[in-house]
Amino acid sequence: MGSKQPDRRVFLKRGAALAGGLTLGAGAVEPLIPQTPADGQSAEDESQQVPDYSSDELVAYGQRSHRVTSVREPVNGRPSPDEYGLIFHIGTPLGEQIGTITPSALHYFGTTRGSFVPDIDPAEHRLMIHGLVDRELIFTMDELKRFPSVTRLHFIECAGNRSSPRHSRIIESHGMTSCAEWTGVLLRTLLEEAGVQDEGTWIVAEGVEEVKGASSLPMAKAMDDILVAYAMNGEPLRPQQGHPLRIVVPGFEGILSVKWLRRIKVVDRFYMTYNDYGHLRQDSDQAALSYQVGPKSVITYPSAGQQLPGTGFYEVRGLAWSGGGVVSRVEVSTDGGESWMDADFRGTPQRMAHTAFSFNWTWDGTEKVLMSRCTDELGQIQPTRAQFEGGLDNSIQPWRIESDGSVHNAV
Amino acid sequence: MGSKQPDRRVFLKRGAALAGGLTLGAGAVEPLIPQTPADGQSAEDESQQVPDYSSDELVAYGQRSHRVTSVREPVNGRPSPDEYGLIFHIGTPLGEQIGTITPSALHYFGTTRGSFVPDIDPAEHRLMIHGLVDRELIFTMDELKRFPSVTRLHFIECAGNRSSPRHSRIIESHGMTSCAEWTGVLLRTLLEEAGVQDEGTWIVAEGVEEVKGASSLPMAKAMDDILVAYAMNGEPLRPQQGHPLRIVVPGFEGILSVKWLRRIKVVDRFYMTYNDYGHLRQDSDQAALSYQVGPKSVITYPSAGQQLPGTGFYEVRGLAWSGGGVVSRVEVSTDGGESWMDADFRGTPQRMAHTAFSFNWTWDGTEKVLMSRCTDELGQIQPTRAQFEGGLDNSIQPWRIESDGSVHNAV
Repeated sequence: MGSKQPDRRVFLKRGAALAGGLTLGAGAVEPLIPQTPADGQSAEDESQQVPDYSSDELVAYGQRSHRVTSVREPVNGRPSPDEYGLIFHIGTPLGEQIGTITPSALHYFGTTRGSFVPDIDPAEHRLMIHGLVDRELIFTMDELKRFPSVTRLHFIECAGNRSSPRHSRIIESHGMTSCAEWTGVLLRTLLEEAGVQDEGTWIVAEGVEEVKGASSLPMAKAMDDILVAYAMNGEPLRPQQGHPLRIVVPGFEGILSVKWLRRIKVVDRFYMTYNDYGHLRQDSDQAALSYQVGPKSVITYPSAGQQLPGTGFYEVRGLAWSGGGVVSRVEVSTDGGESWMDADFRGTPQRMAHTAFSFNWTWDGTEKVLMSRCTDELGQIQPTRAQFEGGLDNSIQPWRIESDGSVHNAV
Repeated sequence: MGSKQPDRRVFLKRGAALAGGLTLGAGAVEPLIPQTPADGQSAEDESQQVPDYSSDELVAYGQRSHRVTSVREPVNGRPSPDEYGLIFHIGTPLGEQIGTITPSALHYFGTTRGSFVPDIDPAEHRLMIHGLVDRELIFTMDELKRFPSVTRLHFIECAGNRSSPRHSRIIESHGMTSCAEWTGVLLRTLLEEAGVQDEGTWIVAEGVEEVKGASSLPMAKAMDDILVAYAMNGEPLRPQQGHPLRIVVPGFEGILSVKWLRRIKVVDRFYMTYNDYGHLRQDSDQAALSYQVGPKSVITYPSAGQQLPGTGFYEVRGLAWSGGGVVSRVEVSTDGGESWMDADFRGTPQRMAHTAFSFNWTWDGTEKVLMSRCTDELGQIQPTRAQFEGGLDNSIQPWRIESDGSVHNAV
């Protein structure tokens, strides 16, 4: 423990930090006890606004600090009619994201018909499985919870999650992806109970939405890893996330993860439904193949709309994910893609889950373009915008850091 | 996909489920569309009480359903004076736990002085590192966030988390343990910045509590895996969990994970402090050795206070953890400990984290005693109550299921 080298600030001696010098804490040798409002010295007139975190109500069920103000925002415009109806997209403030899990209160959501959020009594809710099955089945929530269950970390990303030059903040360019720990029953378990007939090659999953949000999914996926989920992040689903029941379709575009699930019909063909939003003009093979999110990543700090306080050491942080399975590699470029260096993972990457990465970097105060690039276990590599061939946009996001430390979208 | 065997209810054919038969969904062949309040048919007079989940406020920051009512409760008595002062223990409703992560709003908490929860402005908060160091340092929150960070899943458990025959529900016997994804800087990183002198063999960590909650910790642990955490479950720490800064001491008794952290002093000996609650009469070696939580587990469903609805298949679910590192095995007994069978893990067990397990079981309607037993990577095995030799109580918890399906504490 501890030699007495004259300068043993080990952190300074590591890798990139050496180059620019570390300004962290330097010179901050003030032998003062920190002064905080808790010491009763600077609370001033805030007392009326401060919740009493030791009140009976907040002892029973806690809240975040009144000083923490991250919020979701409508992205891609306020709800507006298009040829398919009203689309409502609420983005996660990814620029303020810490760690891997998206807090449930900040999980992105979209609906296909305004901002409709049904209020469903779990005691009355039922899931029906019917169509090309040996036995039609109807389950109560209590029955579903008695089945063998799984708990898995998965991202859900909206197909509309794409960057454009007009996006000035990351919540606009990438805010429609989130990650949670989901718990529920594998759909396969329920389908095996019902007995899928040979002709049953697709399913249609339907939610309790005004227009009966429904999605067509191939049976191979249904028998693989689709989750009929009743919980997220350790508690029942939030209303905006489908309480009391939804499907989670790992790695497929978010609209297919039908919320407020009430019916699964086994069918013999691809059905064109309202929720197969981007695929209405495709044939079934095209539709099935285009559901999967490609390898994707984004640097969340520093990202567009943020401001670096000065030169020196930074931990560049971001998220990577892929519908192709486990993220196997993330690289970072600080010179606009001319050279790439491996980033570090936090924890063990999980299948179809956000994987947090970091990269130690020292900024010298000159203009830089930062990028990240994801490779998944299938060997798929995230394309540049020039390489991107269409479909779900998973192209590399460049952020330009100007000499004043401001960060901008460089798409 | 799908043969046409007369009975292909595959789930029925698996393991234990065979013995008692599966009642799930049986006979529920009613070709009805489920009727829910969302269809506008049974909402009745609840409309006044239902929050508008599509309101601007709840779009910005979501809430759980008004129908989900899990709450924390004071356990081990309401705040009461003892020889050390007021202790306030608020337990997590473990019997309603789903998955691995404890929702932040339901994370257990204890304080050593009533229910005091300080309201600290992160912009004003400072962390000082001083004592036997080459350089005293004071960090702002922004400076701390610029350091290389880690994100790790860890449980925190109060040393007072023990079962007694008078506990009629799991929240009372085991509610003072919780698990979250913590993000922050390794304390080692900061200590290396400050330069620990050779005589620095212990640290004292101090929080912003009325009585200056402080804990003594050995330097070996400080240089290993103690986390100076500013975030949990993807967002800043909650006030009751130490906002804006705490330490997380993986695997050690919870009181040592000092909240509202403002000062770390490097010292040359074990200091007796208020927070070294159970160790005031111990010498330093005893104290250090007795900090670590042994291998422990508990079945959360079915658990005391719950009611089985009938005979048939159940997924027995529970949590296992150890201060000794990764949980390597969990066994379940359904006959009061005469025979043991391996349970399944959910996901990959993490170091000093709650590890969710499950076990498929068919109940025949007779009285049973269920138990779980944890083994960790060090080979430590959770003891029975008879084998337990004192210290932090990690003894096996038996739950007795009576023939009427009620579940009771069998300690």
